[in-house]
Amino acid sequence: MQRMSKSTRVYLDWAAATPLLPEAYVAMVPYLAGNFGNPSAIHAEGQASRQAVEEARMTVASAVQVRPEYVTWTSGGTEGNNLAIFGVVESLAQQGRAYESMTVITTKIEHPSVGEAFAALARRGVTVRYVQVSEVGKIDLEHLRTLLDESVVLFATALINSEIGTIQPSRAIHKILHEAEVKYDTEISFHLDAAQAPLWVNCQFDALAVDFISLDSAKCCGPKGVGVLVRGRRTNIAPVVHGGGQESGLRPGTENVSGIVGAAVAINEAQASWRERAGQVALVRDQAIKHIQTEIPQACVNGAIGEDRVANNINISIPGLDTEFAAVVLDKHGFAVSTKSACSGAGGGASMVVQETTTDPTRATSTLRVTLGPDTTVANLESLTDTLKDHIEQMSQY
Amino acid sequence: MQRMSKSTRVYLDWAAATPLLPEAYVAMVPYLAGNFGNPSAIHAEGQASRQAVEEARMTVASAVQVRPEYVTWTSGGTEGNNLAIFGVVESLAQQGRAYESMTVITTKIEHPSVGEAFAALARRGVTVRYVQVSEVGKIDLEHLRTLLDESVVLFATALINSEIGTIQPSRAIHKILHEAEVKYDTEISFHLDAAQAPLWVNCQFDALAVDFISLDSAKCCGPKGVGVLVRGRRTNIAPVVHGGGQESGLRPGTENVSGIVGAAVAINEAQASWRERAGQVALVRDQAIKHIQTEIPQACVNGAIGEDRVANNINISIPGLDTEFAAVVLDKHGFAVSTKSACSGAGGGASMVVQETTTDPTRATSTLRVTLGPDTTVANLESLTDTLKDHIEQMSQY
Repeated sequence: MQRMSKSTRVYLDWAAATPLLPEAYVAMVPYLAGNFGNPSAIHAEGQASRQAVEEARMTVASAVQVRPEYVTWTSGGTEGNNLAIFGVVESLAQQGRAYESMTVITTKIEHPSVGEAFAALARRGVTVRYVQVSEVGKIDLEHLRTLLDESVVLFATALINSEIGTIQPSRAIHKILHEAEVKYDTEISFHLDAAQAPLWVNCQFDALAVDFISLDSAKCCGPKGVGVLVRGRRTNIAPVVHGGGQESGLRPGTENVSGIVGAAVAINEAQASWRERAGQVALVRDQAIKHIQTEIPQACVNGAIGEDRVANNINISIPGLDTEFAAVVLDKHGFAVSTKSACSGAGGGASMVVQETTTDPTRATSTLRVTLGPDTTVANLESLTDTLKDHIEQMSQY
Repeated sequence: MQRMSKSTRVYLDWAAATPLLPEAYVAMVPYLAGNFGNPSAIHAEGQASRQAVEEARMTVASAVQVRPEYVTWTSGGTEGNNLAIFGVVESLAQQGRAYESMTVITTKIEHPSVGEAFAALARRGVTVRYVQVSEVGKIDLEHLRTLLDESVVLFATALINSEIGTIQPSRAIHKILHEAEVKYDTEISFHLDAAQAPLWVNCQFDALAVDFISLDSAKCCGPKGVGVLVRGRRTNIAPVVHGGGQESGLRPGTENVSGIVGAAVAINEAQASWRERAGQVALVRDQAIKHIQTEIPQACVNGAIGEDRVANNINISIPGLDTEFAAVVLDKHGFAVSTKSACSGAGGGASMVVQETTTDPTRATSTLRVTLGPDTTVANLESLTDTLKDHIEQMSQY
């Protein structure tokens, strides 16, 4: 492992990965270095693991306020999104509904685990419609209304966009979907990719008015390789991966006991204190954005402002700057930032999210994403801004 | 966590779960409690994780003797089996081949992650053929030959049956598949579910003469929630889960870095010393089987004898005995055993594997699976046998 002096590093990529909560680590150790029973086994070692998995399920269920049987463990946010999206369509297909008779709706600014799932559905013959988003990435609700008809079975989007931090109005979306359900006497499943949410916004299931949310432990200070799909009472889904009867037949494979235990601690803690955390970090964010705009006047902010933006996200474009290179330079100066989402690939290329929202290729190819943690200070971000400003000035001399 | 006095427990369910190798745990900690970077991120934290994932890939590649790019990380054996099986068929489907024109072959004694995947393929319109197995669970090679024609695209089976421990002759299977490939000028992918293999048999890829093997870290003293699909040069597979470009587009989602690092240590160590381990444990197994047959003469051994049986597996039927209850009684006396595979469900019901191989429902409903670890002693198993004998005598008084 590459050595990094922690004292000099400023980690500003919380949307890509988060440190493991010490309490989560402590909870995991007994199931890593200690009991290793298979939760499906009949003996004491197995039952101890079963108990741990089910207690963790109850913890998450309580954190998002659903009954435990509506919590399904997955291997992460990507699998959770796939399970909801394919799960709805494949369940209908198994009931005899033709792919060609189904329409699914999303946006063009989704994480690949939603966007590529929809692309795969299109290859199976399902009609995919894309609802327009505004320049700050908010869903155009009136446009959504016009896309709804009796063929629509699913709408999916991210609660918080992972690149530009825009928060979607899930209750308003639900209202429009529900009106169409009444009008056409159909059922439209509503899935929210909530991977970026637990640390910063309320994830109470009823408050979101959805049928599914997927969470990713690794994005809220839990271990990597664990996620949760939470579903509502009326949902019917088919599994994506086939095998044993684990997770009520929805997600086979021996449960990752230690990971599940750690994930529950992290998700619970994230939700227990999201409001205070978000309140504090939003103040830091807003001060930092002001500082950036003063020091680097050509920087433009991508995404929404104020309450429609997640507390910890700063995303700016600096037209003309090679921000991929800037991120490398910042890294050498001790700042860990990114240009877009990690899952969109570390390599170059434009941000599809900023291209789609701003329709400005100059902005889309010059993005920097700075995502804050609870301990990020204004001084950290002023120091980042000064380093970035120096770099821009050096570049302008060529 | 339920407390268990280690000194008095005899764990004999190694086919269901294995203890984490201390060296694997030590290797994992820096990526659990320490660096948490997203391997797709550009900065130092991300690159440290990337380096760990790629070094782990090289370790596994070296252990099974393939190039690193042929090693794909998964969330476990179930996902690996699904990725190979659906991957082959969906890749052909994407190239325009109709499901109805494809035939896939397996046995009726597979783990659910193979058996259910084949059942799902059948629902998509693919023809599924089942090759016969002998009374000890060995594939009938002559029958396999008769099932092959120009429509066959895939054959999949377990290298080691997880219930009865029978080892399939992979090179002989390959030879028959290859003859058909030449005869019909086709390509028949050969997948081995090798989840039970690394601790006990050679998993060198070329020696097995296959196109795919899937491994499960948790079955060979690595962490749960991690697996590997190893593939050969000529393979083409489509992903099962859709999302980011991780794992060359075959398996999206942020990598479980600590799990991957631990899995590599475990798989490597398992393979480095399989021969000595298997040699010693087979001696213990054979002595124990003799003791069982002496003390409990009505017990009959399920599966092959000698070299065709994995070193650590004992599977017996005791006709007339409620072995589900016997397993609970043994547990109370400190012995962790199972009746069949954990993924087949902890609940009652017959062993499909023993039913299929022996066609004897009395045997199929009275199985006990005892799977040994490297430190299991003859004394442990004699003590188990004595306890079991006492229980049988008690039961016979009713």
